[in-house]
Formats: sequence, structure tokens, C-alpha cells
Amino acid sequence: MKKIGMLGGVGWPSTAEYYRTICRISQSYWDSQGHARPLPTPEIAIESLNMSFAVNNRGNEQPGSWDSWDHYYQNAMESLESAGAELLIVSSITPHARISEISKTVSVPVLSAYHAIGTYCLDNGFNELLILGTLPTMSTSSFVDGVSRYGIKASYPEPQALRDRVGSVIESLYLNQTQGASAAIVDIVQECIPAENLANVAVCLGCTELPMAFGAQADNPMFKQSGISFLNSTVIHAQSAFDACLT
Amino acid sequence: MKKIGMLGGVGWPSTAEYYRTICRISQSYWDSQGHARPLPTPEIAIESLNMSFAVNNRGNEQPGSWDSWDHYYQNAMESLESAGAELLIVSSITPHARISEISKTVSVPVLSAYHAIGTYCLDNGFNELLILGTLPTMSTSSFVDGVSRYGIKASYPEPQALRDRVGSVIESLYLNQTQGASAAIVDIVQECIPAENLANVAVCLGCTELPMAFGAQADNPMFKQSGISFLNSTVIHAQSAFDACLT
Repeated sequence: MKKIGMLGGVGWPSTAEYYRTICRISQSYWDSQGHARPLPTPEIAIESLNMSFAVNNRGNEQPGSWDSWDHYYQNAMESLESAGAELLIVSSITPHARISEISKTVSVPVLSAYHAIGTYCLDNGFNELLILGTLPTMSTSSFVDGVSRYGIKASYPEPQALRDRVGSVIESLYLNQTQGASAAIVDIVQECIPAENLANVAVCLGCTELPMAFGAQADNPMFKQSGISFLNSTVIHAQSAFDACLT
Repeated sequence: MKKIGMLGGVGWPSTAEYYRTICRISQSYWDSQGHARPLPTPEIAIESLNMSFAVNNRGNEQPGSWDSWDHYYQNAMESLESAGAELLIVSSITPHARISEISKTVSVPVLSAYHAIGTYCLDNGFNELLILGTLPTMSTSSFVDGVSRYGIKASYPEPQALRDRVGSVIESLYLNQTQGASAAIVDIVQECIPAENLANVAVCLGCTELPMAFGAQADNPMFKQSGISFLNSTVIHAQSAFDACLT
């Protein structure tokens, strides 16, 4: 297996979840191949950043204002490449808004979550995607643009009040308050998508917290609840990294 | 904060738990200092090994038989040093049996779990320690010798049948079967330590699984149950790494 490099720490719960998911997927794959125990996992190098530094060095629309943020991420990617990583991932959705800047100074492949989710939709016959994520994710067009390259028509909840409701659910889940969270998510989805369209649209749980609302079924890349097809972006992205490390 | 380097993957659940614990300790420290959000975490580089390769390259008593195993771990430690880590830890107890060989080729400090637990016992007035761990941990004198350097009189459960019972509890916990586990651990401890000595002896939960028997109270370095003082080796070791990265 190729060695995986993972840029993490922004935030750390997401990194822990990606790491756990890649190891779990690997063990279940090698178990299905009849491999002896202990079951193999790929070698994984992780660079976990300090989120406080990252957030306080975010730029704005001024040219050059992102330089210090970009360098912080680029240095970590270079360090993963020096550690022998043969493919790289960024283990959370929010920094993907600058995935091309982050990837600029390394020469090994960077597998973006947009690519993983876009191709997953294509392979599973979905050409429309409703993206639920953190408020920063839903405030730029990066995710929508990123999957549209694969022919997927994507959108965020409209109007803003619905996005704010997604933000509130994420906040409760971050505090480990899961009660009522899945019903709240289903309600939001039903206000965004007319009932007759539900079969054609996938709903992407595009952050680490949202899948927690659905318990163990969210350990799968896709699951159904109330007639809605939900995609877990962490599992799909981690699975794409594991698939790539096998080839 | 200094950058922490963590050798992990052997096994990966322990690495995930160390990472989570260091980040949690850091956030709670900076919260108590009134720091603005997002709360800082140290930068952490992780090298996660393939446990299947590691186990299949273990040596025996023949000279040179550990060479390939030693090189595998040494290369990972060197990689962490190259990534800028200023202090290193190995995120599980079992490989500590060869901590001096693992540490041989790096020049930054390696904080061993033996040191962390030995000094914790001294600071908290315990001079006797009963160590519960995996069967490999309890089959060599490394842990006992490692803490004895701090003046701690340590031992494993005697006879072998009691160690086997510890092994069975760990196996159930690994499968997430927690019911009855804390009672089983208390029983084993009570067979090892006469009731009148309980106040002077600490019991070290020296692997990642055992603390799972005690729920959230095991997030602390030390907690009491049935008059027994339990130490969580993961929390004590992670806390020592965080303390060192602050200095």
C-alpha cells in the first residue's frame, strides 16, 4: 500500500475521524481478503496544525492577504511529502476552499474531497447534490464549483435562514447533543427539495459533525433515511484515499 | 508551544486516543487561561506504522533478530524529527519494551510512558504500583523496571491465571463490550492487593482498552472506584507530553 499523508488539525476532531475511518476501511478490506491478523493499515503521516494560528491568519479579498495562511498549509504539505507520503489529503472540508493554493508546492497527487464526492455521485447515478456544511463552507461557491466539474448540479440550502438552521444543528452536535438532530436535518432537506424530486438528489453531510446525528449507519458512504439519500463526505473522501493507496 | 512528534499505528485506536487526549488537554488548558476561540492545540506530527508489518518483524532472543523491527521504528522517529518535532512520544505501551532501541537515532527528547507514570506516582505519593496491561506487556519486566528507576515498587498480577483474566477483559473491551468490565477489573485488583494495603497502592490501567470500562471518569489521569486509585496511562503520558511542549 502507498503511504498516505494527511494534513489535519483544522479541526482536530475531523482528523481523528478521518484517521479512524481509513484504518477501519483498511482492516475491513484486508479481512475480506482473508489476511492474517493483525490486519494491515497503510502507513499514514499526519501534520496536525494549530487551528488557532490558522484561523487568525485567514486573509480577505486584499491581494497577498492569504500569504501567511497559504505558507502555513504549504509547509505542512511539503513536510508530508518529505516524510514519504505518496498521496495527500486535507482532512476537513472547510480548507478545501483553497485546495489549489495548498497543493501548489508539492508534486505528489492531492486527492480533494470535491473529486471524491463528485466521482462518487457519478458512479451512483446522482446528478444533483444538496450540500449541508459549516457556515464558512456554505458561504463560498468552492464546494459547488468543485463538484460541478464532474457534471454535478450542486447547491446549498436557500434562503440564509435554512443555512443558519444547519449551523445550529452542527453547533449542538459539536456539544454532543444528538437528540432531535436527525429530525431537524430531515426537516431542512424537505424544505429545500420538493418531495417529487427526492429520489434524484443526494444530500451531502459535508462536515464531521452532521453524520453524528445518524448513529452507526453514517459509518457508510451512503445511507437512506425518510426517503433521502445521505452521503457522508468523510467516509467517501477516506475511502477514495484508501482506494488510491491500493493502486 | 513546541511541536510534538508521535509514533503511532501500533495499534491505531491507541494513537487516535492519544491524539484526542493531547488536543482535549490543550484546549482545556488554554480555556482556563482565558484564550480566545478557537482554542490552540500544539502542532503534532504523527507517523502511523502498519501494525501487520511490525508484528511480523518482531524478533526473539537471537542476536540481530530485532534489526528489521528496530529500523522500522527508528526510521519513523527520524522522520518525525525531520518534520520539526521538538519532543517525541510513542503512543502505546507495548513498544516501550524497546524504547531505548527506538530512540537511538534521534537527538530530540523522547518522553517515555515509564517516565511519565513513574514521576506521576512520586508526585502523588504512591510508591507501589500494580500494572494491568496486555499480555505482551505483562510478560516482560520492562514496565516494572522502567518505573522502578523512579523508586516505585511495581508488579503485575500473580499468578498467570489473573493475568489471563486481565487479557480476557481487554479482549471484550476491544469488541466494545463494556458491561461488567469494571467489576471484573475490581475483582482482579482485590485478589492481588490485600484490603489493608489498598490505600498505598495505585493500579495502572496500562493499555488503551482498560479505561473504557470506567466511562468518562477515566478521562482523568487518576480516579477512585471501590476504594482503589486507578491511573490512566494514556492520559498521564499525553499530559506529560503537553506539559513538556509548554516549557
